[in-house]
Amino acid sequence: MNTRTLVKNLAALPDGPVTVSGWVETVRDQKKVQFVILRDESGAVQLVNPATRELPEPIEGGEADAAASARLATTESISALAHGTFLTVSGELKHDERVKLGGLEVKIGSLEVVAEANPETPIAADSSLDKRMDWRFLDLRHPKQHLIFRIQTTFEHALRQYWVDNDFIEIHTPKLMASASESRAELFEVDYFEGKAYLAQSPQFFKQMAQPAGFGKVFEIGPAFRADPSFTSRHATEFTSIDAEMSWVDSHEDVMRMHEELLVAAFTAVKEKHGAEILDLFGIELEVPTTPFPRIPLAEAKQIVADRGYVIPRDDADIDPEGERQISAYVKETYGHDFVFLTDWDISLRPFYHMRHPEDSALTNSYDLIYNGVEISTGAQREHRIDVLVEQAKEKGLDPEELEFYLDFFRYGVPPHGGFGMGLARVLMLMLEEHSIRETTYLFRGPTRLLP
Amino acid sequence: MNTRTLVKNLAALPDGPVTVSGWVETVRDQKKVQFVILRDESGAVQLVNPATRELPEPIEGGEADAAASARLATTESISALAHGTFLTVSGELKHDERVKLGGLEVKIGSLEVVAEANPETPIAADSSLDKRMDWRFLDLRHPKQHLIFRIQTTFEHALRQYWVDNDFIEIHTPKLMASASESRAELFEVDYFEGKAYLAQSPQFFKQMAQPAGFGKVFEIGPAFRADPSFTSRHATEFTSIDAEMSWVDSHEDVMRMHEELLVAAFTAVKEKHGAEILDLFGIELEVPTTPFPRIPLAEAKQIVADRGYVIPRDDADIDPEGERQISAYVKETYGHDFVFLTDWDISLRPFYHMRHPEDSALTNSYDLIYNGVEISTGAQREHRIDVLVEQAKEKGLDPEELEFYLDFFRYGVPPHGGFGMGLARVLMLMLEEHSIRETTYLFRGPTRLLP
Repeated sequence: MNTRTLVKNLAALPDGPVTVSGWVETVRDQKKVQFVILRDESGAVQLVNPATRELPEPIEGGEADAAASARLATTESISALAHGTFLTVSGELKHDERVKLGGLEVKIGSLEVVAEANPETPIAADSSLDKRMDWRFLDLRHPKQHLIFRIQTTFEHALRQYWVDNDFIEIHTPKLMASASESRAELFEVDYFEGKAYLAQSPQFFKQMAQPAGFGKVFEIGPAFRADPSFTSRHATEFTSIDAEMSWVDSHEDVMRMHEELLVAAFTAVKEKHGAEILDLFGIELEVPTTPFPRIPLAEAKQIVADRGYVIPRDDADIDPEGERQISAYVKETYGHDFVFLTDWDISLRPFYHMRHPEDSALTNSYDLIYNGVEISTGAQREHRIDVLVEQAKEKGLDPEELEFYLDFFRYGVPPHGGFGMGLARVLMLMLEEHSIRETTYLFRGPTRLLP
Repeated sequence: MNTRTLVKNLAALPDGPVTVSGWVETVRDQKKVQFVILRDESGAVQLVNPATRELPEPIEGGEADAAASARLATTESISALAHGTFLTVSGELKHDERVKLGGLEVKIGSLEVVAEANPETPIAADSSLDKRMDWRFLDLRHPKQHLIFRIQTTFEHALRQYWVDNDFIEIHTPKLMASASESRAELFEVDYFEGKAYLAQSPQFFKQMAQPAGFGKVFEIGPAFRADPSFTSRHATEFTSIDAEMSWVDSHEDVMRMHEELLVAAFTAVKEKHGAEILDLFGIELEVPTTPFPRIPLAEAKQIVADRGYVIPRDDADIDPEGERQISAYVKETYGHDFVFLTDWDISLRPFYHMRHPEDSALTNSYDLIYNGVEISTGAQREHRIDVLVEQAKEKGLDPEELEFYLDFFRYGVPPHGGFGMGLARVLMLMLEEHSIRETTYLFRGPTRLLP
């Protein structure tokens, strides 16, 4: 393994010889001295080289000439460095308070060009989002973009740590299915040998399968696919879905309690590990939410929004994106909270497998979680009584025969259960006040984007 | 939330009232006393009920009659219990050494049938593997099957803990691609709006993209898809792939070193958490491998196999499954090790993106990892020099134009790098000496299996 020192670890070293590897962020090629800003995955450092622009007049004895030739060659190769070129540099570390970048620099001894960059960099700081997506691997070199994925790593690991600590089992449900898991409308069809398969729109049916299987509590973080032709900042044809499902819930309240504890654990981990960098690069003082998150029944939320003067332009019982922003603003003003559970959704807005209220069969034991004005998750208690489930499927116009494999899960004993699905890129987008999930997705997929 | 006690936690409680929830494993309905074995995700417990078979003669005062009626009702509902029915039972916990199952039992006070099972259980202990897959949610109720997925949880969490501790970044690469990632031959085609997309056969290209992106070290655990029509015990059309890729490697040796440390961390975690249960249910004393794992160049391995008297029936430079078993047996006998890296594969057996030996351009800087006689992983240093990479692609008969988006990753600076992909279900299959990855996959997918 390359014996380089990560840039972030230089500060703790004494002055002396070091080797660093990374890519060229900028070159300042002055007459007498050259500066290179070298970046690696941990930070950036200034490299310095006193320029040797020409060989001295020949003198007796060749040795000095060879050294001078080497210095000239180094100088010339620094002058030729293209932005993005990967280098390994050995030199002398020197702590020096006057150096703005971290108070240290490395005086270049030897320099090895590992892979030259094409000097025509195809994107710039002011390139359009779409253009940046075309060259995502260059876009991701920027410290902000890089931080997003280190935050993602910490966020997901904290979720899993919570689940593992609470005896959840990790599952990987199949993404190839014989039929739709959610809606026929947004389904990708796959040529499957002599027949057809479909891409899972969510792990819904299969995470529920873990309940009659006696797994108790399960989680999965994996891809989900929606053939959704929309081009909003919040939709993708492929996204990372965070899912949990657990047995023996009394209602959606139990699911919400797990959900909020989970988010507190994850936000705490992100703030501890990256809080200072988030403030530095995004200008955001990340807040760890307090529990319990506010809970507002949807009908009440709509009344609050109406009282604030916003008329939701819909004929059904649903709320719209501006309504979500309004109720979020109300919650922030009233409770100082960034999250709110909107509960008790009308059955017309929910899939057949959501359990209905014991007292009011027009409502479901379900919720949406709104974070900073945008829906990030849907959760519910599931209907586990096979006769009721079949009736609800029929009411929604579904053919129970097509759902047979799923309905079988409920015919050989099943505990009451509930869970949620949450979009990873949405949470990160809202946490970092980004404008699109394209920024918080490693490689975005949309109706017209399959590359790179 | 249901206030049940998990069965595994009963042993630590004093005698007294408890509530347990789970499913009926067996009922012994004797004339004077009834026994129910109730199982939940943590274990099994004996429930006991003194049978009340008929009401006593009416006497004065109704109260005693009501209690007797309740006892009769409980007795009758126990007699009617079908295997698999989910129950909640409140009763009196009593520690009693004479009870074989954990030295305790619960005397039933009240019993609530939560979801009745269809009494016709469609599978039995001796059902065929294919039949068990048809009813996977019932198959998974068995303690052995259940343990497999708790081991999976621990195994994966330990992998991620190692990576997080070593500053790897977690990525989710897209599974929808514009072209093939590995081979045109085993590619699933998806109808994608007006065009076509393909399912990723591996995250290969996209985890490599993280290298010019400056991510340094990345990992992913996610699905991969192969339109492979074979029906062996080791192949699936969808499988969970464990992938890592890292910058600044000097050769595949650096990848192997990370790979073996990672496996030691994961096996250690599994042994610590589940060693006793694995011994109990699978009869296996799990061994944590020692480092370094033996490394044998492929050509040498083939000679060893030949010297053992096995002639590999192939005309090319490859080894075959029996050859893998033979070399594994040799390594076990010679070094007492369950793992072996077979290194330095012939270029004819490797994809175009494997780096070739600096000294011998007929060989690659690559390896396969064999565990208990079966290949579980392929790793390599990648070719990062664009001109060499293009030449190697052409040599393999590929059209560089089709690979343009991938080749671009190497045109704007890229560090040397390498990594591996490893099949999760294969590792678990071999760890637990199971005969098929169907046993260690939550829901298997094959050419003729898309259900449930």
